[in-house]
Amino acid sequence: MYQTLIHGILNNDHGSIAKVISLIENDEITPDILSKLYDSSKKSIRVGITGPPGAGKSTITNALIEVCLANKKTVGVVAVDPTSPFTGGALLGDRIRMNKYSMDEKVFIRSLGNHGDLGGLSRKSHEIGDVLAASGKDYVFFETVGVGQGEHDIINTADICVVVLVPESGDEIQLMKAGLIEIADIFIINKSDRKGANRISYLLKNVLHSFSSSKIEPPIFNTIASNNTGIVELFSGIQSHLNLMEKSGNLSSKRLKRYRYRVRDLVRETLEKEFWELGKTHALDELTENLEDIREAPHTIAEKLLKNS
Amino acid sequence: MYQTLIHGILNNDHGSIAKVISLIENDEITPDILSKLYDSSKKSIRVGITGPPGAGKSTITNALIEVCLANKKTVGVVAVDPTSPFTGGALLGDRIRMNKYSMDEKVFIRSLGNHGDLGGLSRKSHEIGDVLAASGKDYVFFETVGVGQGEHDIINTADICVVVLVPESGDEIQLMKAGLIEIADIFIINKSDRKGANRISYLLKNVLHSFSSSKIEPPIFNTIASNNTGIVELFSGIQSHLNLMEKSGNLSSKRLKRYRYRVRDLVRETLEKEFWELGKTHALDELTENLEDIREAPHTIAEKLLKNS
Repeated sequence: MYQTLIHGILNNDHGSIAKVISLIENDEITPDILSKLYDSSKKSIRVGITGPPGAGKSTITNALIEVCLANKKTVGVVAVDPTSPFTGGALLGDRIRMNKYSMDEKVFIRSLGNHGDLGGLSRKSHEIGDVLAASGKDYVFFETVGVGQGEHDIINTADICVVVLVPESGDEIQLMKAGLIEIADIFIINKSDRKGANRISYLLKNVLHSFSSSKIEPPIFNTIASNNTGIVELFSGIQSHLNLMEKSGNLSSKRLKRYRYRVRDLVRETLEKEFWELGKTHALDELTENLEDIREAPHTIAEKLLKNS
Repeated sequence: MYQTLIHGILNNDHGSIAKVISLIENDEITPDILSKLYDSSKKSIRVGITGPPGAGKSTITNALIEVCLANKKTVGVVAVDPTSPFTGGALLGDRIRMNKYSMDEKVFIRSLGNHGDLGGLSRKSHEIGDVLAASGKDYVFFETVGVGQGEHDIINTADICVVVLVPESGDEIQLMKAGLIEIADIFIINKSDRKGANRISYLLKNVLHSFSSSKIEPPIFNTIASNNTGIVELFSGIQSHLNLMEKSGNLSSKRLKRYRYRVRDLVRETLEKEFWELGKTHALDELTENLEDIREAPHTIAEKLLKNS
């Protein structure tokens, strides 16, 4: 059966892709499937798209899909909503766009909910990315909300990271605080027909100039994704920036970083899983049965649990 | 020396507090100091304040400090900017407010940068919270940007979580997507003098009504923190909500959850640290020296490293 699924994926059979992604989501995947796909997954361009809620990430991703198709490129999308307890992975907006391409073998969109468990989210996103890449998709977009650690890891290890802001995204200090500059390869000021678009572009440019980094300075694109303004420019901007990154060696160092990060992530997960399987969960519950009786710091309890392993 | 520091903290000596916090930040703290402080740290109310960049979290925290002081309450603040690579913990805004209270023994503010390393951020925040609590601060505020996993963990394990939105915070779906409802005990619509404040309050109320949860339905407060509008109401709202949470048992279950989460966090960190100390980092580098030569999935490399441990 696994052989059939792998064959299916390598031949871009969307049924097989969907099945294997479900296995990944439900923690039922075996590493050998992923190992067999890995070598075929190295060609795709992985693009991370992030930014605060309401900035228009989904609209931009949708618009980019259309530009990709117009350029005879195929696309996979992994939409990640780690903090949403509501989704089984399909909110209204996602459902609409998934339906639109459901019969199109050039586009595969998967929305990844958290099913109440944040653990393994970054790993799963990368694995789903591998599956889509192995199916031959030219581009794999990772779309995530927010800039926190879990999503940060997903985005930061894409080949290129696009940060979407809006004219109201706050002043210079807020931009810096949000840590967006560190992860961004490209900035978008979306909804640029709104007041303040020029101001934020200007502020951002100043911050970028004054911030020295080993990275190529991120270009800024103004878009109005809802009517496709600036999207073609953005798409070719992504391509030129990737070329620059390739020439400077930035791209391969990012890919190596991603690979190592993924190994570390897997090691962490295995170590934890093995530890808590040894009856330790029960031991923790017993040691902390009654909040009022706890006089010891968490460190002391952790030490006790670790000593008996 | 440790005895002096502990004595200092328990007697609200800000010099000792600052020293121990620096030890925590620099990973130089010994668990026995924290264990000695823990039992004295249980009385403080821990309030998480989060929301997207630019929503005005710092302004609200500042305004709440003033209300606390007017009510003869003492305050500690842990401001967390995990994604900012710029701060050594003191951006302009933070510097201003820290200076304001630098001679005031009723307020202690610490801004926690990431020093290039996201690891242990949640643990460190909680430990700093313990120190401030053990010094006798009535309230400890945890202020973080964003709603991602790392910060999510900090905020989600506070006694009460305040989520700050602005009138432009996006439509119903975006609210749900951002997962804010799951973590929020109280919502603030800040900058409520701006257009759309009523609309977002209304949308939010509808979403909250239709969302069944074991939690008490979060109240919504409208504020204009920059001129203190609504802050006194917010402060008493926090207190009433805490009373409700205490009566319903929500508060103690949250505190137990926090304790267990902290134990698990410490166990994870120790397991990882011990693993990568065994020459494994070097082994990983060797196994992944050249990106082009890697044919195996990260799983295979992880397995190899784990087998030899």
